[in-house]
This record gives sequence, C-alpha cells and structure tokens, in this order.
Amino acid sequence: MSHVPVPPEAPGILGLFAFRPETAGPLNALADALLRGPSSLSRGERELVAAFVSSRNRCEFCCGSHSAFAAHQLEGGYDVVDAVLEAPEKAPVSERMRALLAVAAEVQRGGREVRAETVAAARAAGADDVAIHDTVLIAAAFCMFNRYVDGLATTPAPGRPAYDEMAKVIVEHGYVGSASAMG
Amino acid sequence: MSHVPVPPEAPGILGLFAFRPETAGPLNALADALLRGPSSLSRGERELVAAFVSSRNRCEFCCGSHSAFAAHQLEGGYDVVDAVLEAPEKAPVSERMRALLAVAAEVQRGGREVRAETVAAARAAGADDVAIHDTVLIAAAFCMFNRYVDGLATTPAPGRPAYDEMAKVIVEHGYVGSASAMG
Repeated sequence: MSHVPVPPEAPGILGLFAFRPETAGPLNALADALLRGPSSLSRGERELVAAFVSSRNRCEFCCGSHSAFAAHQLEGGYDVVDAVLEAPEKAPVSERMRALLAVAAEVQRGGREVRAETVAAARAAGADDVAIHDTVLIAAAFCMFNRYVDGLATTPAPGRPAYDEMAKVIVEHGYVGSASAMG
Repeated sequence: MSHVPVPPEAPGILGLFAFRPETAGPLNALADALLRGPSSLSRGERELVAAFVSSRNRCEFCCGSHSAFAAHQLEGGYDVVDAVLEAPEKAPVSERMRALLAVAAEVQRGGREVRAETVAAARAAGADDVAIHDTVLIAAAFCMFNRYVDGLATTPAPGRPAYDEMAKVIVEHGYVGSASAMG
C-alpha cells in the first residue's frame, strides 16, 4: 500500500500526480522537455535511456512504462529495448547509443561516478554536446522519478498490455497533454 | 572543466541553465513548487532536506547553495544547518524534522530502501501526508539535481559568501524569478 493516499485505479506515478497536482505539473513539463522536446537524440532513444536507468534502479513501474514508450517509438520495438536492458554493451543499437548508455550507467551510480573518458568515448562515437547533456539529465531525472515512485511504495501496472495502452496516449499527446487522460 | 560548454562566470547548475534553457524552465518551476509552494513544511525545512541529501551525495554546489537557502530561512541559521549535516539524529530540530530526515536518508540510498517503519515513525512524530510526500520528492529531486551538476562536471562557487549572495536573490524572487538574474 502506498505511503500516501492515491486513487486505487492509478498505478505508479499517476496516483502521486493525483495526490499532489502542484508538483505533477512541473514534473510532466520536465518529462516533455527532456523526452519529447528538440534534441539531437530521437524520442525513442531518449525513452531507451529512461527505461535503462529505471531498470538499473529496479523501478518496475518506470521501467515497464518507459520500455513501452521506447518500444513504440524505436525501429525494432521491444526486441531492441529488451536487449538493451539485458546487456547494453552488445545490444543492436548504434555505437553512439551504446556509448551514451555507458554514460547513463555511471550517472545512475552517482554524479561523481561519471568519468571524463566515458564522456570522451561518447563524443568519439558521434555524440554532440546536446546528446551528452540530455543523456546525463535524463539519467539523473530517472534517479528522481524512480525514487519518487518506489519511495512512496506505489503499485506497478499489471503488465506489458497496460503499459502499451499508456504508450499510445503518451506517443500521441505527450506527458502534460495526457496526464489528465491517464490520471 | 565542464563536459558541455557553460559560461565561465556561472557556477554549478547556473551554467547548465544557460546551456540548455529548454530544460532550465521546468527544472526551476519544479524547484519553486517543491521548495517554495504551499506545503505543511516551511521553506527553511524543505531547503534543509535539499542540503542534507546534497551533502550525502557529496555535491558541493548543491550542498553549498541549499545550505545557504536553508540558513537564510530557518531560525538558528547556519548553526542548525551545519548540525544537521554533521549528525542529523542529534541536531537541534523538531522530532518531526529528525524523523523526516531519516526518510530522506533512505530515499538518497534508493527508492526501494525506504522502509514502512521509517515512514510510520515520521507520522508518529507529527508528519502529515503532504510532509511525507514532499520529503520523499525533495530527496528524490536532489538525487537528480546532484547527478546533473556533478555528472556534467560543473564548477562549484568559491565559498559561503557567494552562496549567501545567491540566497538573498532566491529568498526574495524564487527560482523561476531569479534564474535570469543569477544565470
């Protein structure tokens, strides 16, 4: 049971958005800017970083939902997402993406864990300043979202079909636009 | 040297705001909602949680700045802040605050580290649902801000007087309102 009262039909962060709309607004605006706004990374690539970090933090709701959001926006769908979560260093993604996932893995462990060599390797693989910035901030943001969702003991959704339903709404309307539809 | 180009005169997150204004807006809106909007915790108490978590993450810029923002808004000023960073379990704060700092310490370690008993102890010490929610989200948010600032290898400000100058602006204008003044 969640540590604060949430609507029983709203899993994960959606229940927390209902409990505290004052913080839901900025959190959804951040998700739109980070995961859907202009960037040198595609929306699918950014959702992949979100799913990957959520997997490392063992956050079932965020990993399930952002895996779906990535799969629905990446060529290769769940095959690519599942391969990245299983073994990012040999997953069928670009060299650039593999190098950025290595940066994200260091951010997940802590801000001071990020090594200049890991960033340099991403740059050598074709990542520009915006790609490096966005990867670090997305990885950092999911260290927040994951702790928010699990720290308040919310309930995950029942499985992949439920996350696929959310994905359809997010892909079409974005985070701010779909918060009321899903909340 | 920072991993992305930032203005040399802008320390910590301020340089990153200048590099990527698209994400600076939602991040500052989140800081205002979390640290200054309506809550059952005072602004000083919320800044204290931010400084405490930043200290645990060893983020010099965020710890220095939010320690100043707490000190300028708490009775007892830096004496209270420094005591909390040194030994929260015997710091001169309320029982409720001590119990909430224990929740924040668990969130800092990970979302799944938060124990129901720690939340129950905070409730027994007088924390309501909003205080528990806000403590968890503030602690989670600083696990993001700290990783953002250190993961991109920004430079801290030169010391307490510099953070005190920032504090005057934040206390008067808030985060969104002062972003341009400080950036």
